[in-house]
Amino acid sequence: MTDYAAILETIYADVQPLLVQGKVASYIPQLSEVDAAQFGMAVYCLDGRTYSVGAAGQKFSLQSVTKLFSLALAFSLEGDAIWSRVGREPSGSAFNSLVQLEYEQGKPRNPFINAGALVMTDILSSRSTASDTAILQFAREICDRQDIEFDLAVAQSEHGTAHRNYAIAHLMKDFGNLHNSVETVIDSYCRQCSITMTCTELAKAGSFLANHGTIPWSERQVLDASSSKRLNALMLTCGTYDAAGEFAYRVGLPAKSGVGGGILALVPGEMAIAVWSPGLDETGNSLAGTYALERFTSLTVRSIF
Amino acid sequence: MTDYAAILETIYADVQPLLVQGKVASYIPQLSEVDAAQFGMAVYCLDGRTYSVGAAGQKFSLQSVTKLFSLALAFSLEGDAIWSRVGREPSGSAFNSLVQLEYEQGKPRNPFINAGALVMTDILSSRSTASDTAILQFAREICDRQDIEFDLAVAQSEHGTAHRNYAIAHLMKDFGNLHNSVETVIDSYCRQCSITMTCTELAKAGSFLANHGTIPWSERQVLDASSSKRLNALMLTCGTYDAAGEFAYRVGLPAKSGVGGGILALVPGEMAIAVWSPGLDETGNSLAGTYALERFTSLTVRSIF
Amino acid sequence: MTDYAAILETIYADVQPLLVQGKVASYIPQLSEVDAAQFGMAVYCLDGRTYSVGAAGQKFSLQSVTKLFSLALAFSLEGDAIWSRVGREPSGSAFNSLVQLEYEQGKPRNPFINAGALVMTDILSSRSTASDTAILQFAREICDRQDIEFDLAVAQSEHGTAHRNYAIAHLMKDFGNLHNSVETVIDSYCRQCSITMTCTELAKAGSFLANHGTIPWSERQVLDASSSKRLNALMLTCGTYDAAGEFAYRVGLPAKSGVGGGILALVPGEMAIAVWSPGLDETGNSLAGTYALERFTSLTVRSIF
Amino acid sequence: MTDYAAILETIYADVQPLLVQGKVASYIPQLSEVDAAQFGMAVYCLDGRTYSVGAAGQKFSLQSVTKLFSLALAFSLEGDAIWSRVGREPSGSAFNSLVQLEYEQGKPRNPFINAGALVMTDILSSRSTASDTAILQFAREICDRQDIEFDLAVAQSEHGTAHRNYAIAHLMKDFGNLHNSVETVIDSYCRQCSITMTCTELAKAGSFLANHGTIPWSERQVLDASSSKRLNALMLTCGTYDAAGEFAYRVGLPAKSGVGGGILALVPGEMAIAVWSPGLDETGNSLAGTYALERFTSLTVRSIF
Repeated sequence: MTDYAAILETIYADVQPLLVQGKVASYIPQLSEVDAAQFGMAVYCLDGRTYSVGAAGQKFSLQSVTKLFSLALAFSLEGDAIWSRVGREPSGSAFNSLVQLEYEQGKPRNPFINAGALVMTDILSSRSTASDTAILQFAREICDRQDIEFDLAVAQSEHGTAHRNYAIAHLMKDFGNLHNSVETVIDSYCRQCSITMTCTELAKAGSFLANHGTIPWSERQVLDASSSKRLNALMLTCGTYDAAGEFAYRVGLPAKSGVGGGILALVPGEMAIAVWSPGLDETGNSLAGTYALERFTSLTVRSIF
Repeated sequence: MTDYAAILETIYADVQPLLVQGKVASYIPQLSEVDAAQFGMAVYCLDGRTYSVGAAGQKFSLQSVTKLFSLALAFSLEGDAIWSRVGREPSGSAFNSLVQLEYEQGKPRNPFINAGALVMTDILSSRSTASDTAILQFAREICDRQDIEFDLAVAQSEHGTAHRNYAIAHLMKDFGNLHNSVETVIDSYCRQCSITMTCTELAKAGSFLANHGTIPWSERQVLDASSSKRLNALMLTCGTYDAAGEFAYRVGLPAKSGVGGGILALVPGEMAIAVWSPGLDETGNSLAGTYALERFTSLTVRSIF
Repeated sequence: MTDYAAILETIYADVQPLLVQGKVASYIPQLSEVDAAQFGMAVYCLDGRTYSVGAAGQKFSLQSVTKLFSLALAFSLEGDAIWSRVGREPSGSAFNSLVQLEYEQGKPRNPFINAGALVMTDILSSRSTASDTAILQFAREICDRQDIEFDLAVAQSEHGTAHRNYAIAHLMKDFGNLHNSVETVIDSYCRQCSITMTCTELAKAGSFLANHGTIPWSERQVLDASSSKRLNALMLTCGTYDAAGEFAYRVGLPAKSGVGGGILALVPGEMAIAVWSPGLDETGNSLAGTYALERFTSLTVRSIF
Repeated sequence: MTDYAAILETIYADVQPLLVQGKVASYIPQLSEVDAAQFGMAVYCLDGRTYSVGAAGQKFSLQSVTKLFSLALAFSLEGDAIWSRVGREPSGSAFNSLVQLEYEQGKPRNPFINAGALVMTDILSSRSTASDTAILQFAREICDRQDIEFDLAVAQSEHGTAHRNYAIAHLMKDFGNLHNSVETVIDSYCRQCSITMTCTELAKAGSFLANHGTIPWSERQVLDASSSKRLNALMLTCGTYDAAGEFAYRVGLPAKSGVGGGILALVPGEMAIAVWSPGLDETGNSLAGTYALERFTSLTVRSIF
C-alpha cells in the first residue's frame, strides 16, 4: 500500500530549493505582501484518510480555484444550458485577454478564464440576489466546514484594481452575454475569489469531483457521474490558464490553479490533492505547487494517462 | 466481463442515422470522392483480444492521425530536445492557421497542428534522407504489418493543393525553425499523411501508447512509460484540432483524429480503439466517429476521468 | 469663378437616389429613429461667402465629428505632449475594437478611434472639472454661435448603451492610460458626442482648420499653422474609421465623419465643407455624404492630390 | 521665387548628424553591406528644372519604391478591376505580416504591402510572360532613360531569403488570389525590387504622378487625372509602411519609400522629389530621408494640407 505520508515528506524536501524561485502575484495589492517561501500539501482519499505536510493548515486566498466552485454550482443548477453562454475549448491566450473574446462575439472560450467565470457568476446572480453567498455556502458544504469565509480586505483590494475584469464584463454586456449589471457581477466575483481555505480544507472540497460528483461523507450528489467526469475533462484541458497543455504533459491530472498559489488536483475515483505555495511561475501557476504535483504522480504512479 | 462485441454492435446501430450528416473533406481532391456513409470500428486490447464492427477492414487515408507517428518517432529518437522547436499548448485556432505562428515567432503551439507536424518531419528529415520511409517503417512496426503503404495518388493530390502548408513551412523557414528545404519537408509530409490502414490495423498501431510505450507483442520499448504518458496527455489536450476541449468533455479519452475520418483513441493500460467514418463535423473530426467513441466510453465506463 | 451654388444644386439632385440606400446608426436608440432620407450640405469659404443646399439648416447629432474638437482643444492646450498617450497611425480595424488596443498596451492608434477620443477627454478632464463644458465652449467659439448645445436625450441614450466604450476605458485604465475615473470620462464623452449643429454651423466650425489654425473672423490662432497642417494630415489618414484609405482615394480631402451622418471636410487654404445625410454605408460613414463630397471634388477640381 | 538650390544645401547640412543614426536593412544580404552614411536628394519640377544635392547621382536599390511602378502599370492596363483583388486601406501592421491577410481571406489591404505588390505582379504576369521586363520598360519610360537595369546580384540575394514572401504568396494562392505560379510571381517580384536608380532619375520617374498622370516631356498619359489623384491618395495613406500616419503628420506629402533608403515624394501639380539615405528608422523608412522631406515642406511651405 502506498505510503502517502512518506511521499509527502519526500516532496516537501524536494520543493525547498524552488520556494525562492517563484514570484507572488503583484496585481492584487493584498496578495503581493504574502511571503513566497511557503509550502503546504494535503491529500484527501475517498475512504476518508487524509495526509498533509508543511503549511497545510495555513489559510490562503483561493482566487481562481473558486472558478471551479461557481462552475460546479451553476452546472448543477442549470445543466447543459450553461454551454450556450460559454465554450469548452482552451483559449490559447492569457486568462484575462480580450482579443479572443472580441473575435468570438462575447462568448468566452471556457469557464476557467476570467470572462467565463464572470458568466458563471452572472448565471448565479440571475438565480439569487446574493450569488456570492450562494457560492460561499456551496464552498462550505463541499469542504464540510461552516467557518469558511471571504477575506473582505482581499476582495476590496482586488475590486480596486479590477479594471481589466470590468473591461471584460462590459465587452460581454455589449455582446448581450451578461444579464445582470456589471457592478453586481464584479462585486460577487471579487468576493468569491477572496474565499480562503487551507490545503486540508481544499483537498476535501475537491473530493466530490474525484468521487463522480457525490460528496463522500454526506452522499449528496452535486453532479451526476457523467457531468462530474466532464468537469474533470474541462479542468485538464483548461484549468491552468495558458499552461494547461504543459501541466497535463507534466502532471497528467485534472487541476485548477489560482494566483494565490493554490492548486487543486484530482485522481478520479481515488483522491483529491491540494497544494499551496504562493510563488508563481511565468504562466501564473504555483511554481513549487506544480512541481510537487509532478513529483506526486511520479512517486505514486497516479497519472490518468 | 465487458462484452465488447455486443457494445460495438450497439454502437454500429446507433451511428447509422449520423452517417448522412457529416461531410467528407473537400480540400484534398482524392478524399472528396469517398462515400461518407461508411463506418468501421475496432478495439485492440492489450491482452491481444480484438473486436471489430462494420467496415473495420476497409483501408482509409490516415491523414493527421499520422502526426502521432511522426511525433512518437521523433520523440523516441530525439527526446526532450524536440520541445525547443514546438510547444505543448492547445492552439485555440484552426489547425492550419498562420496567425498564432506569426505571433509566436515561428514556433508552433503543438505537434498536432500542421505547423508542428512539419517541424517533426523536418527533425526526421535531418536524421535521414528519407523521412517518409522512416515513418512508414515505423507505422509498419507498430501495427505489425509489412504491407502498410503510402497512397501515392492521395499524396500527389494533397501536394497539388498544399499552398497553405507551403505558406506555413516558408513562414517557419523565415523564423529559422525549418532546417531542411521547404520542398523536402512538404514532400515527406504529404507522403506520410497518405498512409492507409484499416481500423483493425490502426487500433493495433496505437496499442504501444496504451501500453506505456512498449509494443505489446514484440515488447520493444518505443518510449519509456513517462514519455508515453506525456504523449497521451498531448493527445487529450491537442489531438482533435480546435475541438480538443469539446472532445475531452464528450469522450474523455486521449485521441488523434484525421480529415480522412479516422480517430485513434486510447484507454491507458487497457486498449486502443480505432474508428473510421469519413463524414466530418464542422471542426474537421469524424462526426459519427466522435459519437461512437462517446457511446463507447458511456457503455464501457472507460473514461480516464 | 466657380459657381458653388450651382454645383451644390447638381450634387443635391445627384444624391437623391442614394438617400434610401444607407442605414441609420442603430446602436444608439435615439439616433435610430432619425429619417434616413435627408440631405444637407454647406460650404464656408475663408472669405466669408457661404453656400448651402437641402437640409443644411437642420440640426443633427455630431457624434464622432466632435472627436475633432476634443483633439484640437487638447492639442492647443497641451501641444505635442498628447502624443505620448495616443498614436498617429490608422488602426486597420473597427473604430471600437479592443484587439489592437490590447496588443499595443492601452495606447490607442490615433485620436479618432473611440479609445483615442476617450484619452483626449481624459486629458481635458485633468485640466478642468467640466471637460464637456470646455468642449462645448470651444465648439461655440469656432462656429461663432453661443446657442450650440448638447442633446441630453441623445447623451443619455448613448450612455445607456456605452458598454463597449466602458470596456475600452477600463482596459486603458488597466494599462495606466486613463488618469480620471472611467465614469467621469465616459460621462463627458457621451455629452460631447451629443452636440448638435447644422451643416452651415459645422462648415463654419471647421474653417479654422482650413485657415491654418486661425479662426477667420476673430483672427484668434487656435493652432499654429504647422499644427493645423498636421491635424489635417491626421484627418486624411484616420478621420473616417476603417475606410480612411477608401475615402482618401475617392474624395481626396481631409475629413472627419460621425455616425449621426455628418462629415466635415477641408480644402486647405480655401474652405470647409459640411455634409449630412443620416443613412450610413457599411463602414459607418454617411453614404450619400461621401458621394456628395466625391462629386464636389470632381466638379470643383479641389482634391489636395 | 523659391531658391530650391539653397534649400537643398540647407537640408544637406541639417541631415549630417542623422546619417550615423539609421541602420541599413539587414534582411537582404546585399543591402546590408551598403554604407549608411550617405545622402542624396533631387527635385524635378514639372517645368523641367532640376535641383540636386549630395549623392544624388549615386545608384541605389529602389526596392519597395518599385511597388509604385507595378501598381501604376497594372492600374493603367486593367483599370478599376485591380481593386477586386487588393484593398485600399492602411494595414495597421508590418509590411510583411500574414495576420491580416489570413483574417481578410487572402485579399491584401493595399498594393504597397508585400502581399498587395505580389498581386500586382501576378496581374502583370497574367498579361505578359515577362512581367519583370514590362515593369523595367515602364521604369525606363517614366524616367526617360533606357539604361535603367535590374541589379541581378541583389535580386538573387533577395530571392534566397524570400521565405516570408513565399509564405505570403502561398497563402494568397490558397485563397485563390494568385493566378500564376508562386515561383513565377516571386521571381518577377525580386527582380523588379532590384531596379536601381539615382535620386535624379527617381525624381524624374515620379513626375508623371505629380503631373496628373501624364509624362511631362512626352505628354503620354499613363493615367487619367482622376486615377493619378487616387494613386497619390493611396501613397499618402499607405505608402510608408506602418508609419504612413506619422509620415503624413510630419511631411504631409504623398510618398513611397523602400528599404534601400529611397523615398519618392510628390507635390501635386508642381514637382517630384527623391531622397536617398540608406540608414533606416525602426519603421523601415529612411531616417535622414524622412527628416529631409519634413524640412523641405517646412522650408518651401509645400505641404498638401
